[in-house]
Amino acid sequence: MDKLFDIVILGCGPAGLSAAVNAIIRNKKVLVLGREICSPPLHKAQLINNYLGLPQIKGQDLLEAFLEHAASLGVEISPQKADTISEIDGIYHILSGDEVITSKAIIIATGMPYKPTLPQEDFFLGKGLGYCATCDGPIYRGKDVLLIGHSSEAEAEADFMAEICNKVYYLPLYKGVGTLDSKVEIIEGRPASIIGTDFVEGLKLKDGREIMVEGLFVLGGETAPDRLIPGLEIEDKHIKVNRQQETNLPGVFAAGDCTGPPYQVAKSVGEGQVAGLNAAKYVSRK
Amino acid sequence: MDKLFDIVILGCGPAGLSAAVNAIIRNKKVLVLGREICSPPLHKAQLINNYLGLPQIKGQDLLEAFLEHAASLGVEISPQKADTISEIDGIYHILSGDEVITSKAIIIATGMPYKPTLPQEDFFLGKGLGYCATCDGPIYRGKDVLLIGHSSEAEAEADFMAEICNKVYYLPLYKGVGTLDSKVEIIEGRPASIIGTDFVEGLKLKDGREIMVEGLFVLGGETAPDRLIPGLEIEDKHIKVNRQQETNLPGVFAAGDCTGPPYQVAKSVGEGQVAGLNAAKYVSRK
Repeated sequence: MDKLFDIVILGCGPAGLSAAVNAIIRNKKVLVLGREICSPPLHKAQLINNYLGLPQIKGQDLLEAFLEHAASLGVEISPQKADTISEIDGIYHILSGDEVITSKAIIIATGMPYKPTLPQEDFFLGKGLGYCATCDGPIYRGKDVLLIGHSSEAEAEADFMAEICNKVYYLPLYKGVGTLDSKVEIIEGRPASIIGTDFVEGLKLKDGREIMVEGLFVLGGETAPDRLIPGLEIEDKHIKVNRQQETNLPGVFAAGDCTGPPYQVAKSVGEGQVAGLNAAKYVSRK
Repeated sequence: MDKLFDIVILGCGPAGLSAAVNAIIRNKKVLVLGREICSPPLHKAQLINNYLGLPQIKGQDLLEAFLEHAASLGVEISPQKADTISEIDGIYHILSGDEVITSKAIIIATGMPYKPTLPQEDFFLGKGLGYCATCDGPIYRGKDVLLIGHSSEAEAEADFMAEICNKVYYLPLYKGVGTLDSKVEIIEGRPASIIGTDFVEGLKLKDGREIMVEGLFVLGGETAPDRLIPGLEIEDKHIKVNRQQETNLPGVFAAGDCTGPPYQVAKSVGEGQVAGLNAAKYVSRK
């Protein structure tokens, strides 16, 4: 198992980078899975004056300082996203696209708590609503479906569905949609709510339009942490941790905004440190 | 009450300064009580590489950056020590020498957990052992006493005891003792243990010498936090806090090393931020 890491960290914001820095100093084999912009809220912050030691700093510059610090220690950030995580014999298997990454411990530092794209997603999940079109696609062969795409990565799924479905609507939540299969109809607008009583019957848009479909997919959005790692305990929309940043699952730690307010940089960096050190200790003891 | 502060912070290390910065940004009237060197362990640290954003920094330089940041926001550090704290009608009264400082909330950020100077201090407290010679002095009129001084401030107490006691021994735990009353005998050596079964009978030194006295004082040492604020809950030698840095007492918060390991800068700064913000919220709601 070449790709067995000691610690895989989900997220490259202040908490994730602090965890990485602290774990790598403890000689652990660390991989950070991150997005292109590591912390959109920090990146956008005009001026931060309460991260001790770096007064009056632009959010973007602070994030840059964090990334440089991490890079100076050899922290590797891979631009990918965990789709699901499952534990087998004490090793966590992280599925990311087609790739499986294995790790002895996990630190979740995915930032602001998960917000569903639509109301009632939980209720309709598996009743016409899905998060992976290529997985559930065959069920909708010959039927009408609508795909909501959070990023351009969802376009391939729209093209795939065009091959097997009767009608495919694609509603992008980003700008600059590429060229799609001619059977795909692009919808402009903002999604409002799911139409249906027991099963999905369609999608209502904010402007009042209703698009009737049997299948609805939300693609490339955030994954709720307890859907990402089944069994993970959530409390009041946040990942439940103790003061050692341990979750209810052995070897799974969490740090930063995903564990609750205040949503602040120093709090995240501090929790990242505690999570990084405790994950390193956990791996050493195993 | 001119001197009514919103928040008094005990300690000017990373946790205390982070708390101060965050509370002052929330427009609170803040006072920090600190020592000359705000965090001796940080001050002595050769190189710190795990405080995110400031790589490869000398402890002294990091502390300097923290102090400058705090000063830039107008944080006031008063070089004094809280002797006892008591709560009256929801206001905390901090006795520091002859001065009484009042505050709506308290943040304890006193650093590494309290270590008694001598074994069995708890057992002998009030049975020949005391922490304030001028308070208990009259009990020892005409008797032999020994004073252990952690700093030169204890010398005045030795001189006072010389006026009323038969024999006064003074054992300084610091260098450069000043001129004392001629009746005071200075002892060189390190204290080892208290001699006595039910009451203090003397002090044993590390070199084996025994000095027989009826009264023993430990002066200028740290005050155990639960002696400082009666009723404060301690767990495993540390101040018990929840994830909001609240102690069991309303309006009393704690942050940094005093709340438990890991004893690390980022953890302290993060906890200081959470304590500062929550103390500010507490004061605003009052």
